[in-house]
Amino acid sequence: MRVLGVDPGLTRCGVGVVEGAPGRPLRMAGVGVVRTPAEAEIGQRLLLVEQGLEAWLDEHRPDLVAVERVFAQHNVRTVMGTAQASAVAMLCATRRGIPVTLHTPSEVKAAVTGSGRADKAQVTAMVQRLLRLDAPPKPADAADALALAICHIWRGGTTNRLQAAVQAARATPLKDPSPLKGSAR
Amino acid sequence: MRVLGVDPGLTRCGVGVVEGAPGRPLRMAGVGVVRTPAEAEIGQRLLLVEQGLEAWLDEHRPDLVAVERVFAQHNVRTVMGTAQASAVAMLCATRRGIPVTLHTPSEVKAAVTGSGRADKAQVTAMVQRLLRLDAPPKPADAADALALAICHIWRGGTTNRLQAAVQAARATPLKDPSPLKGSAR
Repeated sequence: MRVLGVDPGLTRCGVGVVEGAPGRPLRMAGVGVVRTPAEAEIGQRLLLVEQGLEAWLDEHRPDLVAVERVFAQHNVRTVMGTAQASAVAMLCATRRGIPVTLHTPSEVKAAVTGSGRADKAQVTAMVQRLLRLDAPPKPADAADALALAICHIWRGGTTNRLQAAVQAARATPLKDPSPLKGSAR
Repeated sequence: MRVLGVDPGLTRCGVGVVEGAPGRPLRMAGVGVVRTPAEAEIGQRLLLVEQGLEAWLDEHRPDLVAVERVFAQHNVRTVMGTAQASAVAMLCATRRGIPVTLHTPSEVKAAVTGSGRADKAQVTAMVQRLLRLDAPPKPADAADALALAICHIWRGGTTNRLQAAVQAARATPLKDPSPLKGSAR
């Protein structure tokens, strides 16, 4: 599965592409930032974000786009730009028929570090380790986009394994209904 | 000048087209609402807003798109959807090279009623009067989109008249510098 993670922003929109499957090594296929000038008009900035993301979608053809879920209560000053950039990301993916999932920052942190309250350095260190990179990913603020993509591959994987388990349980006659199997149904 | 006003929203996105110029009668060229189902995925909803607005742009070919400016501090529950729908509107216009302006709700109310704190009924009544409609515009929640378009035509006009006055003052030698002319410079 190839996932494009998008850490939305108008000034800097982080993008990272990760390939992998649950329980198998992950591979970074690309990382970068789409930038727009703060002095440009808002419509122009959104258009630049769109063009930048379209180029990433063209090049990497991801199976899924994972976008950071934006909350209204955080960073009131920048939240509007973040919400608008995330809208562009979701729009670009949906237009191509690519599924979109949203993950909260704490889900992403928990997925890669084990703690939903991990700091940026911890997230970056784990992204580097999980992707087996020789150095922290650059630009530094694109690490979150890679973490988003990793989060999706692993969480999606969890869902898939659960579904597989449920299907297997349904397909198999109950010869030895252990408490574990019982609780999994 | 033909202006498309957009009152952004994910569930209901009001649109209204008004033709006119400052000091001349206004004409409503169209009014409506782009709706998206609340149960649809967010990416799908943004795509429906885009397709709806594209149809309005195709049909009316406005010279300008006026979008309501969204503030983060208002209606925390719905503000994200509103911000995202407004991003789609600005993106659609900018992609076509159509200029976008943003007006605050109080600017719009002040433009059509004289008061920035006018209620919805007052705005609707004035929109009906200014556009010389036989009945209040329907759907009712599209009146704000028409008010936005009117606001832009008049405010744009004010700016244009001021610019024209400044240019005229600069071009004309000062023969009789009255206090009024002096203060206008």
